[in-house]
Amino acid sequence: MFEASGQTFSAHLRQRRLERCHADLGNRLYGHLSISDICYRWGFNDSAHFSRAFREQYEVSPRQHRQQANEASQQTLRRTLQRGWPTGYHEPADDAAPPRGPDGSDAPGPVAARAAAPLSAPVPPPERRAGRHHHLPANDKTIHWGYFSRAIPPVLTVDSGDIVTIETLTQHAYDDHDRMIKGDSGAESVFHWTAERKNVDRRGAGPVDASIFGRGSGEGFGVHICTGPVYVRDAKPGDVLEVRILDLLPRLSANAKYEGRTFGSNAAAWWGFHYDELLTEPKPREVVTIYEIDCNQGGGCAHAVYNFRWTPQRDPSGVLHPTIDYPGVPVDRASIVENHGVLKNVRIPTRPHFGVIAVAPVETGLVDSVPPAYFGGNIDNWRVAKGATVYLRVGVDGGLLSVGDPHASQGDSELCGTAIECSLTGVFQIVLHKAEDLKDEPYADLNYPLVETPEEWVLHGFSHPDYLREFGDKARSAIYEKSSLDLAMRDAFRKTRRFLMTAKGLSEDEAISLMSVAVDFGVTQVVDGNWGVHAIIRKSLFTDGTAAPASG
Amino acid sequence: MFEASGQTFSAHLRQRRLERCHADLGNRLYGHLSISDICYRWGFNDSAHFSRAFREQYEVSPRQHRQQANEASQQTLRRTLQRGWPTGYHEPADDAAPPRGPDGSDAPGPVAARAAAPLSAPVPPPERRAGRHHHLPANDKTIHWGYFSRAIPPVLTVDSGDIVTIETLTQHAYDDHDRMIKGDSGAESVFHWTAERKNVDRRGAGPVDASIFGRGSGEGFGVHICTGPVYVRDAKPGDVLEVRILDLLPRLSANAKYEGRTFGSNAAAWWGFHYDELLTEPKPREVVTIYEIDCNQGGGCAHAVYNFRWTPQRDPSGVLHPTIDYPGVPVDRASIVENHGVLKNVRIPTRPHFGVIAVAPVETGLVDSVPPAYFGGNIDNWRVAKGATVYLRVGVDGGLLSVGDPHASQGDSELCGTAIECSLTGVFQIVLHKAEDLKDEPYADLNYPLVETPEEWVLHGFSHPDYLREFGDKARSAIYEKSSLDLAMRDAFRKTRRFLMTAKGLSEDEAISLMSVAVDFGVTQVVDGNWGVHAIIRKSLFTDGTAAPASG
Repeated sequence: MFEASGQTFSAHLRQRRLERCHADLGNRLYGHLSISDICYRWGFNDSAHFSRAFREQYEVSPRQHRQQANEASQQTLRRTLQRGWPTGYHEPADDAAPPRGPDGSDAPGPVAARAAAPLSAPVPPPERRAGRHHHLPANDKTIHWGYFSRAIPPVLTVDSGDIVTIETLTQHAYDDHDRMIKGDSGAESVFHWTAERKNVDRRGAGPVDASIFGRGSGEGFGVHICTGPVYVRDAKPGDVLEVRILDLLPRLSANAKYEGRTFGSNAAAWWGFHYDELLTEPKPREVVTIYEIDCNQGGGCAHAVYNFRWTPQRDPSGVLHPTIDYPGVPVDRASIVENHGVLKNVRIPTRPHFGVIAVAPVETGLVDSVPPAYFGGNIDNWRVAKGATVYLRVGVDGGLLSVGDPHASQGDSELCGTAIECSLTGVFQIVLHKAEDLKDEPYADLNYPLVETPEEWVLHGFSHPDYLREFGDKARSAIYEKSSLDLAMRDAFRKTRRFLMTAKGLSEDEAISLMSVAVDFGVTQVVDGNWGVHAIIRKSLFTDGTAAPASG
Repeated sequence: MFEASGQTFSAHLRQRRLERCHADLGNRLYGHLSISDICYRWGFNDSAHFSRAFREQYEVSPRQHRQQANEASQQTLRRTLQRGWPTGYHEPADDAAPPRGPDGSDAPGPVAARAAAPLSAPVPPPERRAGRHHHLPANDKTIHWGYFSRAIPPVLTVDSGDIVTIETLTQHAYDDHDRMIKGDSGAESVFHWTAERKNVDRRGAGPVDASIFGRGSGEGFGVHICTGPVYVRDAKPGDVLEVRILDLLPRLSANAKYEGRTFGSNAAAWWGFHYDELLTEPKPREVVTIYEIDCNQGGGCAHAVYNFRWTPQRDPSGVLHPTIDYPGVPVDRASIVENHGVLKNVRIPTRPHFGVIAVAPVETGLVDSVPPAYFGGNIDNWRVAKGATVYLRVGVDGGLLSVGDPHASQGDSELCGTAIECSLTGVFQIVLHKAEDLKDEPYADLNYPLVETPEEWVLHGFSHPDYLREFGDKARSAIYEKSSLDLAMRDAFRKTRRFLMTAKGLSEDEAISLMSVAVDFGVTQVVDGNWGVHAIIRKSLFTDGTAAPASG
């Protein structure tokens, strides 16, 4: 048979493998797999060799074939471009493999082993330590970009009571490379992207090559640069992590030209609440405003430096980005016009905080970092600031705490899609509360991120508080279709009632009356798919000694 | 013919008139007319005489007939009991007539004449006065209950710059007659309701006899006791009224037993956000909590005295109220159980404010007081407090300012349907800004209630900012069906952008960025049909001298 067709067996086998690869590359359901993933899958051990063989056979490169085959669906998908995953796209289970191996390489490994055996974590001394101070820098080895997962190997292991200084980087730093990246070895390592090499290739929970969704190379779903995760020794599912934000400082520009100064970026982007409602031309448009945080004022104020309208950007991999489809695409300065003198009589009192603080979700696979949920995540509440404490229910061994999406200032609603996105470094104390010791604690009954400030309890409601479970396979697209403040309000109401009944011992009637006459509900954000409404309960309402005593 | 049937002509005429009355009383489309209205309409001049004749003819009283005829539709309507008007109910144009004549009598008069010639207003001296101080008590002659209308004759006329002390009464005072009404001649005159006489018969914008809607006698749609209206001389449509709240005090109990003390009521009622979501039995239920405002603490705190579960109440006209279908129904103390010791470790810092502040809508007819709209009305924002200023666009000659729905404290959202409803007296200065002088003023571009506090601008968005126009004939029911925080958020966004562009001279891009990084959006209320989201713009953001200078 082989002779009849003029082929040797090995040639036939190669032919079949190429055909399988050709089919898979043309199948959008395999779009989450990289080209390398696909060629390895069918027995090619060398992607350069595969590429040459493919081109010889089909007269196009694997990437070109993939693009052509998916052109029609690309066009459809572009029209429904959304921050979440396109409806109907199903991620195969094996995509749960994380992108970074224990040593920072690209080699994947078994999920459970990694979470259980954090190879990069320091080995603790056998005796219990208290208050040891760690430093966690932000670089391409210590961050994960755009997703949460129980499968990400921890970059640090701590004991309860330890203090960790965690550097965080804003994913919007490339909006002004000169001010926010240049000279900063950590930021440079994270954002490094040339035609030859992209240090952080995996961005977001979707396919590494997201071009089939009308997105650029390496742009999946989920956008936040998160530092971590941190493995907390002895943390088990059901425990509660208390994360105290002891201090917080803006990251200085490492460019000598801007010595001692700090900058941030605000992108009024296509996922903003305003985008379909613009009044003035050209419509639609995306506008980036660069702010300076006035460090000589103690960081207490920010002012705008300039803004620019987004122009189509071709990334180093050759993909054109007509919109800000993914933060982190290098901006060609020659292509934009800086408008200086904007917001010239405006000074913004800063509210530096972390937009993202999360433990790993219990679900397997990679979880889009945009929608907040029971595990915390992209809460985007400016009250997650210095002096505040965040309580999170541990879902997996070690908790796997990540922090990111740093903001210099945000208003309740984060209306245009982003805050003043600005790299920050925080000092955190991490305290573990074992499940068996939670009784009578205010956080005993936690299934959402609870924030405590010196004056207030801040409870977070979401449109769909457990959207991954609620929507199942469709969660990653459905959550963006079903955004609703009304539902978030209902969730915040339910959580507040529950908190008042369990943590404060009120009857339902007492809780409902108190909520109506004294608890304030506000709009956390309307841009993260899973929209948020928070409830603010002042501690001064209570005179029973469980909180700061009321005056008088 | 008359002899053939054994009737005289006058007997025949009476017979025909009775038949017409019989038909109209059985027609739910005439349900907004009182029985007297109907008998007058068909030529009876004496309602007692009519009643006797009717009973003689039909062997039931007019009221009984009306009830029987409408029983089926009552049952249907009861099932869809809602705060607004039932869908499909159309108010004939002639219902525009207000209930109170210029002298406080029940005789109606032509609408335009009344607004143009406020007979009860003091005659002003010819010279322009400034800062004259008026007192407007609250009694059955100075309040209107549950509706706004350009047709309500003013009870006071003032000049721009005048100061008016306005007493306001809470419509929930009958929840504890002893503490909130007894001995208070103003409150007693407003709430007086016996089988023989109901001082304020017209309550709400609906039919005076609302029994066909499953509501009690005299319970229309709209619930707030409002004092006024106040006619502002020279105010013309297009002008802006600036209403400054100079001072504000709780109303003391007039019962010697509670000398020097003040009380309020919080009703967790069927129109609350929580009502369909109760956890504990019995479900559903309505609960009233009586609070005391700690006057010896300067009114700065409130605490609960007791609560009680609502029990079916039979009003003095004989109608049973299984739910709190309308505030103001006398509560039979023997029918309820007072639970003392509730919320015993809770003290609520008060936020005394006026829930309702309104100019007359431009529409004719009576307008339900519950849904806020462009004319202000039931804003229910606790920031409408001492030191705040409310700007309202004048819609009709004189503006016709009304104030009511006083609250001792409310949380953002007013979740259970009410605040601590507590009678208050305020001192207001009313300043008229003529349309031609508005240029460059922050309130130049106003089509909603704008609130200014010493530190902030507070802009009010609603689900349907001009619902009367938007929904036309169906507005009074539609607004309750279409409540949505998402729409209110959109409206608040649009208003905030407009304010920043017109009052602060920002470009659209500047406004949108500033909104996202520094403006806070909160949930005003989710219980007034037309749900509210407000935007808070801190004055300290601006350093251009148009507001308080920023620090540093």
